[in-house]
Amino acid sequence: MEKVGLGILGMGTVASGLINIIGINNSKITGSLNKELVINKVLVKSLDKKRDVNLPQEVYTTDAYDVINHKDTQIIVELIGGISPAYEYIKAALNNKKHVVTANKALIATHGEELEELAYKNGVSLMYEASVAGGIPIINTMTDNLCANEITDITGIINGTTNYILTQMAENNLEYEQAVKDAQALGFAEADPSSDVEGDDAAYKLSILSTIAFGQRINVRDIPKEGITKISKEDISYAKELGYNIKLLASASRKGDEIELRVHPAFVPASHPLSTVKNEYNAVFLKGNAVGGLMLYGKGAGSLPTGSAVLGDVMHIVKTGGKAKIDLKKENKYLIANKAHKQYYIRFEVIDKPGVLANIASIFGKNDISLASVVQRQKNGDETAPLVFITHEVDRKNIDAALEEIKDYKNVTQIASIIVVENFK
Amino acid sequence: MEKVGLGILGMGTVASGLINIIGINNSKITGSLNKELVINKVLVKSLDKKRDVNLPQEVYTTDAYDVINHKDTQIIVELIGGISPAYEYIKAALNNKKHVVTANKALIATHGEELEELAYKNGVSLMYEASVAGGIPIINTMTDNLCANEITDITGIINGTTNYILTQMAENNLEYEQAVKDAQALGFAEADPSSDVEGDDAAYKLSILSTIAFGQRINVRDIPKEGITKISKEDISYAKELGYNIKLLASASRKGDEIELRVHPAFVPASHPLSTVKNEYNAVFLKGNAVGGLMLYGKGAGSLPTGSAVLGDVMHIVKTGGKAKIDLKKENKYLIANKAHKQYYIRFEVIDKPGVLANIASIFGKNDISLASVVQRQKNGDETAPLVFITHEVDRKNIDAALEEIKDYKNVTQIASIIVVENFK
Repeated sequence: MEKVGLGILGMGTVASGLINIIGINNSKITGSLNKELVINKVLVKSLDKKRDVNLPQEVYTTDAYDVINHKDTQIIVELIGGISPAYEYIKAALNNKKHVVTANKALIATHGEELEELAYKNGVSLMYEASVAGGIPIINTMTDNLCANEITDITGIINGTTNYILTQMAENNLEYEQAVKDAQALGFAEADPSSDVEGDDAAYKLSILSTIAFGQRINVRDIPKEGITKISKEDISYAKELGYNIKLLASASRKGDEIELRVHPAFVPASHPLSTVKNEYNAVFLKGNAVGGLMLYGKGAGSLPTGSAVLGDVMHIVKTGGKAKIDLKKENKYLIANKAHKQYYIRFEVIDKPGVLANIASIFGKNDISLASVVQRQKNGDETAPLVFITHEVDRKNIDAALEEIKDYKNVTQIASIIVVENFK
Repeated sequence: MEKVGLGILGMGTVASGLINIIGINNSKITGSLNKELVINKVLVKSLDKKRDVNLPQEVYTTDAYDVINHKDTQIIVELIGGISPAYEYIKAALNNKKHVVTANKALIATHGEELEELAYKNGVSLMYEASVAGGIPIINTMTDNLCANEITDITGIINGTTNYILTQMAENNLEYEQAVKDAQALGFAEADPSSDVEGDDAAYKLSILSTIAFGQRINVRDIPKEGITKISKEDISYAKELGYNIKLLASASRKGDEIELRVHPAFVPASHPLSTVKNEYNAVFLKGNAVGGLMLYGKGAGSLPTGSAVLGDVMHIVKTGGKAKIDLKKENKYLIANKAHKQYYIRFEVIDKPGVLANIASIFGKNDISLASVVQRQKNGDETAPLVFITHEVDRKNIDAALEEIKDYKNVTQIASIIVVENFK
């Protein structure tokens, strides 16, 4: 049987997943390719470390170019992560006419266009399904099955750490700090969780998805980010009461020639499919002008799910002969706008006396903000009371103008929260 | 620019969707193919009918072989439906070395294996994404992105009509008959809805999905079917009370060397993503041994969504050069079992007097059925009262044996419902 040679750069959790799946599902894989996958070389940091995969010792090397230049290798799988040296290795592999499969979101978000052009010039494939949302085949679905669609909207829950924290806060009535500690203890959050909780990780992934969706290079710098660090258990409780769940959304939408992008916490209606995405699960909801609304849901991380995505790309290359994709020149067709024309949830702490609600409502009115609902509740034994509004759709600048006025109003002791309410219109 | 010729057999709603998408999204399509799609011939019943698509009159023909034999046509799209003459046309097209894309579930469920072999022999592709779940790319996801996985479970809501009826019953507290009438008035159900409400349509689709998942030809005859005609608003109300929604599920699962298949109404936990699939939407939840749980959700029918799936297949053929798939010989590796080892919801009407619950529970015990929950309620001004049980997992034969005994017990006036409770273990 014909053999296809693989070289793997890096030997972390995803690489073990990949190697283990090739072992466990070998007959399925060989049957559907009619070819045998052979791992020729694997780049490791140390040759002595004990590993949980079953490969002969001579496969391991500490020299990346043993992997990249191996004469019987057609496909290089990059699983080191980060920009350098992954960037240099992938360029060398592509220039060496090897197909490349990678799970590296930072690299694709930063140098994707250049690497795709290099792959095209060399007549080989560059695939990166595993760079966004782990096992969920969102990238290939957009580029392949939905390629007849103009994608107008993407709304993703694409960071498992923050989704785990928000789910635990909601289900166990925890404060943010406690939920982070629990997530760290269980390995769902890093010791320094900032790249997740500040929204950076989701922004990288959104830049990849929106670049594909709109055919225009979307730079991660152009994506406004707001993390989940200010979400309180009060907000989560009001969300529930009003029929919503709070989720960290990565969203991109196009109206006419304007694109809006954002990573932000948002109220998601309890009846929307994104609301059932809990804990470490991920999902991407998108709208295409032919297919309508479509959601993909699954595991956004982990050894086997991410390995499944990597291997899906590898097998796609083997099955199609690794035809280079069409050279899609990325044009700057669309303007990046930042109107944030949305519904908003706003929570104040106010002095509990007559006229306060009327005064705030009147300031909203002056700024063309109309209200969808109001919740006023008295706290026990407190001088202040929470006052919660949900507005109709309005530009964020109107909200900011109104709040600028409200913050000087002496009966408002705190503007506690401002959170987008997503209505999926 | 190079042209790719299409011929279309049939001119119904999916064909108009397809032709309209090619018109509306032309620049996206041409850009991603670097080739132009040209519709050479369309088979119609009458040349005189006014149509809602923009094609020159000379494209239409009433002779299928004008379409199939057109010298500049590489891809034939079959959208007639039914077995004959679609079967003969597709065979002629494949033998004529044309790639074929079809949305025909009955044909693929019945003759899929033979047609795939014929395509393979002729070195062309046969694709049928649109035959299951409209715009949702479930087939290509399984054959392409998840091809490294052994699929162990498929649970689909793949009939929009029944899902619409059950959603309306639940949301508006309607009896089945009323919900069917409403669905018919809105065009969501046919004048004779039996193929939908009896589960036949879902069984065809499940046979296609499970054939792909298990690599073994699953005949629609081997799928036990139970429709939704006996679901009452009482059952829906108990389901809600117990934390479930009732859905018509098409399910296939493999344990060891046994496969179980079934189309049946089932209790789905309210917290499961399948529970948010409402009205005409479809979804397929599957488990792969690497990817874990994965769900695809979207529109299961309609002109543009189904057209999107057809066009996705057409573009896939153009982009990959229409490589024939590997000839996957379907072996009968697995046994078709019918144990239905599940949790069950059972509703009785009983004479409301002491000892009845104890007697029924004791018959359950004798048949090795253990109980997860019991709901007993008194009806107002009635001699009988409903008595509802949810069992732990047990083979269906134990349930049937217990019910055989219970039906002779004089204090049980009716065995009103037996419905599977799906726990997604």
